[in-house]
This record gives sequence, structure tokens and C-alpha cells, in this order.
Amino acid sequence: MTGSELMTGVTVDSNSAFIAQCLLEIGIAVQKKVTLGDDLSQLTYEVQQLTDADILIINGGLGPTIDDLTAEVLAQATQTDLRCQHEAERHIQQWCQQRGFEANDANLKQALLPERADIIANPIGSAVGIALQHNGCLILATPGVPSEMHRMLKEQIMPLLQARFPNIERQTIKRLQVFGWGESAIQQQISQQFTPGSSTNNEKQCWPKEVELGFRAGAPTLELKLTIQSKQYLAEQERAETMLKTLLGSHCFGEENDSLASVLIDILKAKGQRIALAESCTGGLMASMLTRISGASQVFELGQVTYSNRIKQQQLHVSSQTLEQYGAVSEACVKEMLQGLLEQSTADYGVAVSGIAGPDGGNDDKPVGSVCFAWGSAHEMKSHSLIYPAKREHFQIMAAAYGLDLIRRFILGIDDQPRYFK
Amino acid sequence: MTGSELMTGVTVDSNSAFIAQCLLEIGIAVQKKVTLGDDLSQLTYEVQQLTDADILIINGGLGPTIDDLTAEVLAQATQTDLRCQHEAERHIQQWCQQRGFEANDANLKQALLPERADIIANPIGSAVGIALQHNGCLILATPGVPSEMHRMLKEQIMPLLQARFPNIERQTIKRLQVFGWGESAIQQQISQQFTPGSSTNNEKQCWPKEVELGFRAGAPTLELKLTIQSKQYLAEQERAETMLKTLLGSHCFGEENDSLASVLIDILKAKGQRIALAESCTGGLMASMLTRISGASQVFELGQVTYSNRIKQQQLHVSSQTLEQYGAVSEACVKEMLQGLLEQSTADYGVAVSGIAGPDGGNDDKPVGSVCFAWGSAHEMKSHSLIYPAKREHFQIMAAAYGLDLIRRFILGIDDQPRYFK
Repeated sequence: MTGSELMTGVTVDSNSAFIAQCLLEIGIAVQKKVTLGDDLSQLTYEVQQLTDADILIINGGLGPTIDDLTAEVLAQATQTDLRCQHEAERHIQQWCQQRGFEANDANLKQALLPERADIIANPIGSAVGIALQHNGCLILATPGVPSEMHRMLKEQIMPLLQARFPNIERQTIKRLQVFGWGESAIQQQISQQFTPGSSTNNEKQCWPKEVELGFRAGAPTLELKLTIQSKQYLAEQERAETMLKTLLGSHCFGEENDSLASVLIDILKAKGQRIALAESCTGGLMASMLTRISGASQVFELGQVTYSNRIKQQQLHVSSQTLEQYGAVSEACVKEMLQGLLEQSTADYGVAVSGIAGPDGGNDDKPVGSVCFAWGSAHEMKSHSLIYPAKREHFQIMAAAYGLDLIRRFILGIDDQPRYFK
Repeated sequence: MTGSELMTGVTVDSNSAFIAQCLLEIGIAVQKKVTLGDDLSQLTYEVQQLTDADILIINGGLGPTIDDLTAEVLAQATQTDLRCQHEAERHIQQWCQQRGFEANDANLKQALLPERADIIANPIGSAVGIALQHNGCLILATPGVPSEMHRMLKEQIMPLLQARFPNIERQTIKRLQVFGWGESAIQQQISQQFTPGSSTNNEKQCWPKEVELGFRAGAPTLELKLTIQSKQYLAEQERAETMLKTLLGSHCFGEENDSLASVLIDILKAKGQRIALAESCTGGLMASMLTRISGASQVFELGQVTYSNRIKQQQLHVSSQTLEQYGAVSEACVKEMLQGLLEQSTADYGVAVSGIAGPDGGNDDKPVGSVCFAWGSAHEMKSHSLIYPAKREHFQIMAAAYGLDLIRRFILGIDDQPRYFK
């Protein structure tokens, strides 16, 4: 991992965890990880040391600026000359042209690559990746920009590694997406209800030992990963999946790459129905989470971000009496917001949310983190209040996620209460 | 950094960034970071290599389980015996008693420490830290649990390091926030206009050699960092800052922790004025960027996320003629959206945006990435179209940022055109 921003702590390195997870899926384990700043001689020395591995992945340092050193480091470490590679040059020129400008010297520096290197295409950014064989080590250099690295890893590098190392058995991973139930609480339930067991034991509460359970917490959802090292354990994996789904119930909202928003959009698409949103404390985040998903336009009609009381009255016809008597953060208010929203839209469902994101604005009666939801259809509206005390940004993310989860439960007719109501 | 969970990517390591930031504050730079799994011989070898540094910090591996190896690693690497240290033993016994149980063998294993080691108290957890001098290197071992490590670093290790290395001078960093001008283009301008120079040279175009320039790209903005190693170069830093600000002009929108949204909110607060937003392709993201900032409620009145044509007509009074003749992605449409928005709100300023976020919905005439903006006040409205071909999520982030930047320029009365208009 290269980059002075990693040495100063300005940036938390999440790239290496992503890379390690991907590699593990195809049976490749990371033995050592070295992180260095943008220092030519230090990087060169280290690359020479690390080529005793089968594979060396270098992340970062492929950009256009003078502190992007990876190509030069590789040239020095492998005693190769740098030269302008025309495939890379064409890519950079095209990339610049698409953005309406001519490639300059800094851009074109990214085409100066070690002579013997193969190019790894970058579908998003200007910097191409590098593949280079040296002393029995396959060296792969990828850009540090996460979105570019992610795509290059998935689309180019993983197939390349699988072709190069065909005999490693692939892990098979099943992922479950969970919302509204924390990692440690799930962990505790699992250790209480399941006992570690062998594959021949078919008792319901016996966790098959061939299935490794992993957690990946990411606000607002939690991912559970069921990993087996060989396809011969697919039946055990399926059994473990069933055990977990039974335990998690309605808190398991999806699988694999599902998000709360994508699942909600899929449900609405399947029904040919639409949704509208009225947001106060989440400030447009709920709408933004939905519209980040391609195809949202088919099911999302209208979002109202009504931040002030006056606008709540004008846009959603919340009564001044309700605002005076109960305040803007009240179930009475969000119910009227929802009613006003559904009256002016042709959407089938709606969610309204109002709360105190903080750090200011709280009081003894309604502390920071208080949030009220109303959700449902013109025929049936529900409401609930809860308190989620967290920093402003995290509060907003969780409040928006609660809103999406509540309307998912409503549309699917799920009766049992989510754990976060307790 | 030790721990198998770091090698499999199950855990993203944020500890090392925290440690690096703390150290940098007292003038200590991290030269190299090595991450390894729980492997005794690999860890021991690496510790021996790394003791050529002045300070070696080891994180993780102090817990009670068999894969917690740090004490043993240190004993082997420094050729010291392990023995039960009574201060640590007392701490562990107390810690267990406070939690209502007797210390067991696993707990007490944490008192087995290298003979010559000093103990670093842990105010939260059972695992004490270790301080050990070896071959001129100060070795410090801290627990991997972030909350324990944070407190031990702040309360014990930082004072210890400051006492041991009293003469290190702190870095001083000045940060400039830039939008609408890419890293490579800025770098090229800098290399064309400024020549590296010495501190005695006061020519305007001579970059002071005591000031190190760094870039940190983060969508949607870019950070420029001016670092000096000693306060005696403050004048040079200021001169470099002035040079950069002259070069960047209106593209430098802020300093230090400013974001496009926070700067816009500050401007509006100072003027006692307010803003409203009408969003189509950004789907609420512009509103969400604003409302993520505490205090947004003072300046943000209304956000309309009008995703469908029908809703654009109903909510913002866009004429059906305009939609038919020019389409929803047109300057004619966004102008009418802005007009409708400003008519129904009491806000002083507004921004309207409509575009094609993709991946579907583009055509030859209006490809994916096309986006139109209208911005201004009831007295003066401006509009512009541009094409930003990128993945949906990145397109939305950039489109929202353009919108916020355009209204910032309008309110501040900045006349020159942003580079992204070209």
C-alpha cells in the first residue's frame, strides 16, 4: 500500500481489506502487508524484498503527479527501462477527450511504464494498471482510487489470477444482508442457540463446522458471510443459511449485493407501484439513497425536503395547531406530513420523517437523536418514535435506513415488530 | 499491526491512521507500517527488522487467547525471558473482580511479560501495554481494541514520547480546498509557473523549498496541503499559500476542513439569507450534502426532488410545452423549475438541476452524463449545460457539487467562469 496520506493517517486504508477479501474468495491468502509513503528508494527496496512472494499487489502511485512513483519503482526494482506504452497513451488521450480537454504532460506521464509490463485496463480513471512477471513473482499495480481499484480487481485482476493459478480451490460465499439487529447481539444468539458440530450431525441446532461465519458491519446494514472452502460442502452451507434466516427473520432483508434501497425498488417494480418521501431531519438522504440505484425513476415519484415549519405547512399542509401543540418532531406532525404527501402525489406509498439530528436543538423532553416516522398508504398509516443518539451524519444515515426498512415491512405485510422498536 | 482479521480483510484497520495522526501532532513521522497475521516466527523476524527505527509501536496481540502472541514475540526478539509481572497480575485480578468473576488462566496469561518490560496501564481493558528499550529502539505494545488503544495512547504513550524526544519540532500544515480543477491540470500549471527555489529568493514565481506540497483527491473536491517542518518557515508557507491562491482563483473555495456545503452555509448565515433546491437527477443528494452540516436549518428552506415529468409540472409548474419541446433535461426546463421553486419558497436563492445519471436513458442527442443547471435569485437567473460521463453515483456527486459551487459563485458575485464550463 503506497501513499503518504496512509502514513500521516489522513486516509484510513480500506483498499487492502477489500483486496484481501477478494483474494480469499479465490483461495489466495495475504501473507504480509507493507504500507509506505511516496519515497522512491524505500519503495524500490521494499518491492525487491517482497518479490519472494508468488504475487505482489501494489496499490496507489499510478496518478499523474510527481509523488506518483509506482511505475518508476517497478522499473528500478526489476531493472527495466520506462517507455511510453502506446495502448496506455491512447487510453489517456481518449479519457481526456471524453472530458473535453487535451491530455497534458502530467496526464501522459501515466503512459510511461516499465518496458516489459502488460497493461491492466481502467474502465473509469485515466491511470492504467500494470502486470509484470519478475523472479517468479507476479507483480500487479493498481490505482489507489477505491472505485477504480474495485472495478479493475473484479473485472481484470481476479480472472487473471484465476487463470494463472487454476488449481486453487475457490471459496464459496453466501452473503445475507441484515438491518436493525447488531453484530454482538446476533453473535450472542448464535452462541446460545447453535452448537459447533460436524457435517454428519443433522440436528437443527448444530452449526456445520465446514461453514465459517463472518460479519461485516457497514452503516446502516450488516453483512453475514457464510464461507465454505470447497463446493463439496454446499449442502452444509445451505443448512447454515436456513438456520440463520430462521434466527434473523424479517431482519434479513436481502442477499449478496442487495441494499435496503435496491430491495425496496425491486419490490415496488414487481408490484408496478410507486413511493413518495417527505423528509425533515434526513434532509434528502432517503431520496438520495433511493435514487442512487439505477431504475429508481420507475418507482420514485416525489421527494419533499421540508426543513422549516413554514414549509411543512405550505408544502404538506401540516396544521399550525399540530406544530404548536406537539412540535415538528412528533408522530402527529409526521402523520400530517405523510397525509399531505400522499394527497399531492399519485404514489401508492409514502414515508415521512422528522427528528433532531443534533448536535443542537435537543431538550429534556426531546433529546438529540429523537426521531418520528409515519409510513404507509392512503388507506393505512402507521407511526412510531424512537431515539437513536449518535453523531449527526450517522444519525441521518440510520434514520433514513429506518424509514426505508419500515415501508419495506409495510409493503411486504410483515407483521412482527423490528427489534429497533424495543 | 498484528491480527489475522487484518490479513483476511474482515477488519479495516483504522488504528494505524489514529496512531499516525497522534504521532504527527508531536512531530513524529511514521516511516513504515507492516501488517502481519498471528504467526510467531514471522512476527519475531519482523520485530527484529523493525527495531532499526527510533520507535516501534506494535498494535494487537495482547489479549488472553492463544493467538495473542505479542509478549512472546517481544521476549524472543529481544532475547528476554517471560515472567509474571505482579503489577500486571494485580490489574487483571482487579479488573476481573470488578466484573464479578475470578481471573482464570487465560486472563492471567496477560501478566506474563518480558522481564525487562515496563507496564503501560490500561484504564479500560484487562490487557496492559508494554514498553521496552532494545538496541536503541523504544518498543511500545498496545492492545488492538480501538477504545483501549486510544486512551492508552493519549494518556500514557504520548506524554512518554514527548518526554523521551523533547526536541522534535511539530509540522505545520495549511490546507486549501479546491473544486472544479483537476489534480493533473493544477500540477502542470504549478510546474509551468513556479520554479523550485530557496527561502532567500523572494521572486513571486519561486516556490519556497521549505514548503512541501501534497494533493489529496476526494470526490468531489481536491485538497492541497502545504507542510513545513518547523515554525521558522511560516513566512515561506504564507508566501506559497498566496501563490497557490492566486493561481487557483475562484476554484479555491475554502481552507482546512471546509466543504462546498459548509462554505455555502457560512456565506448564507453571514448574509442572513436562505436557499431552496429543486433536484431531478441528483435525487436529493444536493439537499443531503447541505443538511449533513449542522446549522443547515438556518439557511435551507425547501428541497423538491421532482423525479417525474408529472411532478415537475405539478410541484414546480414546468409547462408541458417546455417538456414536449425541449425535454426534461434542458436549460428551458431547469429555468422553469427554478422559477417555480423560488415562487413557492421565501428563499433568496435557488438551484435547479436535471440530467441523465445513467446507465440508461441516454440518446445521441443527450448522452448519459448530460446535465443542466439553473441557479440564481428571483431577480437574476443563470443556466448552463455540461456533460460529465461517469458512473451513476459519481455523476450524482459531481452534479450536486456543481450545483452548490455555481450558487456559491453567484452569491459571492464571482464573475469569472469556472474551468468546468470549458
